[in-house]
Amino acid sequence: MRRRIYLQMRSWEEALEVFFKRVKPSRYDQQENIPVKEALGRVTVAPIFARLSSPHYHSAAMDGIALEAQVTFGAAEDRPKQLRVGTEAFLVDTGDPLPPGTDAVVMIEEVHQIDTQTVEIMRAASPWQHVRTVGEDLVASELILPQGHRISPADLGALLTGGVLEVLVKRRPRVAVVPTGDEVITPEEALSRGPREGEIVDVNSTILGGLITEAGGECVPHPIVRDDPKALKEAILSASQAGCDIIVINAGSSAGSEDYTASIVEELGEVLVHGVSIMPGKPTLLGVVDKRSIIGIPGYPVSATLSCELFVKPLIAAMLGLAAPQRQRIPVTSTRRLPSKLGVEEFVRVRVGRVGERIVATPLSRGAGVITSLTRADAIIRIPRLVEGIEEGEATDAELLVGKETIERTVVVIGSHDLALDLLASWVRREDPSLTLSSNHVGSLEGIIALKKGYAHMAGSHLLDPVTGEYNITYIQKYLSGIGVRIIHLAYRQQGFILPHGNPQGISRLSDLVRDGIRFSNRQRGSGTRVLLDYLIEKDGIDITQINGYEEEEFTHLGVAVAIESGRADVGLGIYGAAKALGLDFVPLEQERYDLIIPQAFFDNPLVQKVIEVLRSEAFRAQIEGLGGYDPSQMGEEVAI
Amino acid sequence: MRRRIYLQMRSWEEALEVFFKRVKPSRYDQQENIPVKEALGRVTVAPIFARLSSPHYHSAAMDGIALEAQVTFGAAEDRPKQLRVGTEAFLVDTGDPLPPGTDAVVMIEEVHQIDTQTVEIMRAASPWQHVRTVGEDLVASELILPQGHRISPADLGALLTGGVLEVLVKRRPRVAVVPTGDEVITPEEALSRGPREGEIVDVNSTILGGLITEAGGECVPHPIVRDDPKALKEAILSASQAGCDIIVINAGSSAGSEDYTASIVEELGEVLVHGVSIMPGKPTLLGVVDKRSIIGIPGYPVSATLSCELFVKPLIAAMLGLAAPQRQRIPVTSTRRLPSKLGVEEFVRVRVGRVGERIVATPLSRGAGVITSLTRADAIIRIPRLVEGIEEGEATDAELLVGKETIERTVVVIGSHDLALDLLASWVRREDPSLTLSSNHVGSLEGIIALKKGYAHMAGSHLLDPVTGEYNITYIQKYLSGIGVRIIHLAYRQQGFILPHGNPQGISRLSDLVRDGIRFSNRQRGSGTRVLLDYLIEKDGIDITQINGYEEEEFTHLGVAVAIESGRADVGLGIYGAAKALGLDFVPLEQERYDLIIPQAFFDNPLVQKVIEVLRSEAFRAQIEGLGGYDPSQMGEEVAI
Repeated sequence: MRRRIYLQMRSWEEALEVFFKRVKPSRYDQQENIPVKEALGRVTVAPIFARLSSPHYHSAAMDGIALEAQVTFGAAEDRPKQLRVGTEAFLVDTGDPLPPGTDAVVMIEEVHQIDTQTVEIMRAASPWQHVRTVGEDLVASELILPQGHRISPADLGALLTGGVLEVLVKRRPRVAVVPTGDEVITPEEALSRGPREGEIVDVNSTILGGLITEAGGECVPHPIVRDDPKALKEAILSASQAGCDIIVINAGSSAGSEDYTASIVEELGEVLVHGVSIMPGKPTLLGVVDKRSIIGIPGYPVSATLSCELFVKPLIAAMLGLAAPQRQRIPVTSTRRLPSKLGVEEFVRVRVGRVGERIVATPLSRGAGVITSLTRADAIIRIPRLVEGIEEGEATDAELLVGKETIERTVVVIGSHDLALDLLASWVRREDPSLTLSSNHVGSLEGIIALKKGYAHMAGSHLLDPVTGEYNITYIQKYLSGIGVRIIHLAYRQQGFILPHGNPQGISRLSDLVRDGIRFSNRQRGSGTRVLLDYLIEKDGIDITQINGYEEEEFTHLGVAVAIESGRADVGLGIYGAAKALGLDFVPLEQERYDLIIPQAFFDNPLVQKVIEVLRSEAFRAQIEGLGGYDPSQMGEEVAI
Repeated sequence: MRRRIYLQMRSWEEALEVFFKRVKPSRYDQQENIPVKEALGRVTVAPIFARLSSPHYHSAAMDGIALEAQVTFGAAEDRPKQLRVGTEAFLVDTGDPLPPGTDAVVMIEEVHQIDTQTVEIMRAASPWQHVRTVGEDLVASELILPQGHRISPADLGALLTGGVLEVLVKRRPRVAVVPTGDEVITPEEALSRGPREGEIVDVNSTILGGLITEAGGECVPHPIVRDDPKALKEAILSASQAGCDIIVINAGSSAGSEDYTASIVEELGEVLVHGVSIMPGKPTLLGVVDKRSIIGIPGYPVSATLSCELFVKPLIAAMLGLAAPQRQRIPVTSTRRLPSKLGVEEFVRVRVGRVGERIVATPLSRGAGVITSLTRADAIIRIPRLVEGIEEGEATDAELLVGKETIERTVVVIGSHDLALDLLASWVRREDPSLTLSSNHVGSLEGIIALKKGYAHMAGSHLLDPVTGEYNITYIQKYLSGIGVRIIHLAYRQQGFILPHGNPQGISRLSDLVRDGIRFSNRQRGSGTRVLLDYLIEKDGIDITQINGYEEEEFTHLGVAVAIESGRADVGLGIYGAAKALGLDFVPLEQERYDLIIPQAFFDNPLVQKVIEVLRSEAFRAQIEGLGGYDPSQMGEEVAI
């Protein structure tokens, strides 16, 4: 039906090598002379030498008296030497030039004033003591900065000190970013009239612009180009004529029917690489047209970001003559199994935090379309091409996206998702900007199991024991025996039916779920909500095989709400907040208890204590109260086990 | 004579605590609404929630056919299912909306086309397979970013994805930088008319501006304020009225006669801290005037930089609600003894590189006026207040100013300084931007001793054996016995008298050094030049006690040249390049051999080999030839031992 043939799939190292060999970024020679005051972060083209010496005169390095050292020879405690002010001794402040005939400074603390005309010293001075001699800092002609050096604030000072007011730097490489596609609209359009079905909002131009700016390039945005080979050709040629050094074409680089990039680059110049064995980011294209580097980048935002990190940023660095930036690597333990395709290097986004002796990494969504998997990530685990995946509990390396100190000051929560936890994270950050509360949503039971395995500092849980009617305690006894834990109560929450606005099917009782034509949206096994549902339907004697949709599992309350809102289902069980967020109807069924379970070993950890402190503040309680659907009256109280 | 009393000397931690307690940076509440496209690096004021869901429609996650999963149930390899295109199966590209009635996508690779109207599949599809359902990435109402979050490129994408086009961020704190002092002139003035004696060029405003910008503040430069209490008072009040949140007063914060800052801040508001037990940076002043934070910063550029790093940057971070930035710490071995005053925390700038198993740190100048000690530094060693210093060879921690990968790819040269080595470093960087050649100038003999101790990969040396007339080899045999070394020749250099322009005293022979009134500028013991001098004067039977200035030691060729140029001495011994650099006269005396000595253990290190490769290039040889005073005809050749 359609060609899906790549020129030759290459590893990214090979791809980069083939690309650089042809486009020769190290020969980039665009340069400009700019004032030093504007040169922060720019890169020198050539070694820079001082024009002036500094200091440019012999100057006092201390407040005191300047004198000729020779006249002090022989002075001692028992043989003080008196000097006449104005002829033998001269008062100087730090930075003052040495008066003619003097070659040393005696600190003011060591000078006794006899009268206005006479001072006395008790010790001989050595020549040039406490004097900054000419050129102590910089000598005219001396090297200030080598070539290929990125200019720091101190460097600015050194240049000005050396009498250099203008500096020759590499011009920022100009990078055209060309969004393509009939279905693509601008974010402004999307917000003003609402996006239509099939339309894709161009967020990538902004992401790429940010990455290019960070790398030291100048982003030249291009208007959206329609799916028309002629329009794309014109865009490439006009960007080239406008002096862009790199042309990034966003989407259209795979081998689909409307993916013209490869054929047009082939027509105008040369395709060097088409298809790279990375995930996400496979349909990357590298080529050259009229000495301009062409980088075709896939359309999903995560793929686009990764492809830019792997190809555009190193290219800009090489053009500037800088080493490619490298991320700090740390050993981590994966909290989940990560199967991965052989032959493809996969880049898994993870949240990371130190729990006890280990740094644990919990993977985020692996979907290339899930931009939040990037924004929430603390690190990236790279699964090599010849590795089939990483086992749960396996040690591996991760590349940090945040500072190592952030990882050391992160409280890891794994378990059930709750909006109050998101807000708690925000409040904790406000109280102590160095502290992070990182929550990972896997459901209540998985959270408890994570505690057992030592993967988290706390678990959020609302697991009902159908027999006792109690929350959480039975599960703790069953799964965490031998691990002493404490329970801190978060809030009571209202669970109920989430329904389309106006409740068109008139659903109000559990028995409505088995009515003809009613589609239910269920939660995953092990989630507190699923346990509650199973308890309620068993109590009412409802046959689950009669519930249409019972087998289809959503992983969050909001997921269920979206299923209702988008018409995929007619009813689901979830918390009030999720219904309210999307303007849906809600029929309350049950109030449940949501707790934080904390192993005794972490309870006194100051980071954990800080989180509990915020939880116990009146202001935080008031905000949760205001959300609706919560009863936070016992928030922060310890629950007896 | 003059008060030198600080309010109370505090450690910087105490000082910062006292300061923050009073100025309460966490309550900073200036904010502004800006377009997301301009928000890179800015900090959110409040949590930001999505307005739109993404995807906002059920969309195909693959190219293929969309269908209703139910119609495929029962399909298998031996029981393929045929579907009619346009009614049961619909061709979709990735990103297309699902046609009404469909709930799954089958990948194009798994579809057999029978004819234009019919396709066949061999496997049942499950509902919602290969579909990006509404909200898979973001659900309207979901948290996109917490408060106090610094916005990354991916965050920009997430905001736009969530339909957020404008974002409420903290206004960059405005920081007035007020240079003060009668003796201070602008860099432009300095270059246009040449600086006069006693004048100090204001380079600090530019350094501070760079540091403030990097920290996320907005620098508001102020013209130079003369030493006049009224003028300083007006500057503070006008900066305050102009809405500056922080006012940095540069110099005038010690307790000297013209240091008004303390008394004026006391008059207008409150002095909180005056004097901090750090070196450099002691005369720092912290205060508050009309709710504006006042930071009085010392005048030496290294002190100013350090004081800004320790007080201004954390203040800006705290106002933005960010954790104070932290530098990566690594264990290093100091190659020199570093005595330090008790009661003062000292910040020693060092060059750092991995040599064998250890990371070695070689200290740079400790002078507060030596800006190049900052620009050349790779790291800072902090010597705590209650430690009297660090011994040579002692392990300690250093805070990195460059990436760790730079340290791992640094070739450490310790020994004699030579301009050709500076140029070699620049050429190496150009050939491989990830490679650094770091040279530390301690003289030839110290360089050889550094090799013995394992502190360097190579030593630059030009040590004459007076007995054999040979260079370097005797010393290697004496000091490096048991350590196999290789010798790579750098160049022959012309040594001779450096003399004032026009040689007014008519100096041409060694015997001229003992003439009445002739002041000599000597080099330090262990330097190749000193060894040469001592050899020459012994050969000529000259009495060293007759040489005026023999005891005063300069540490570099340029140091000697400067002593001549500035009139401190009438003659010195040094290389032609140093005389030429400062436009001085030169009388050649001797051609000497300058070699690089490399332990066998490091010779095959690829980094070392890269340096040798550059040394052997014709282009590099031609540049050294062009300098004059060098004979590079055997450059890069190995010298037999």
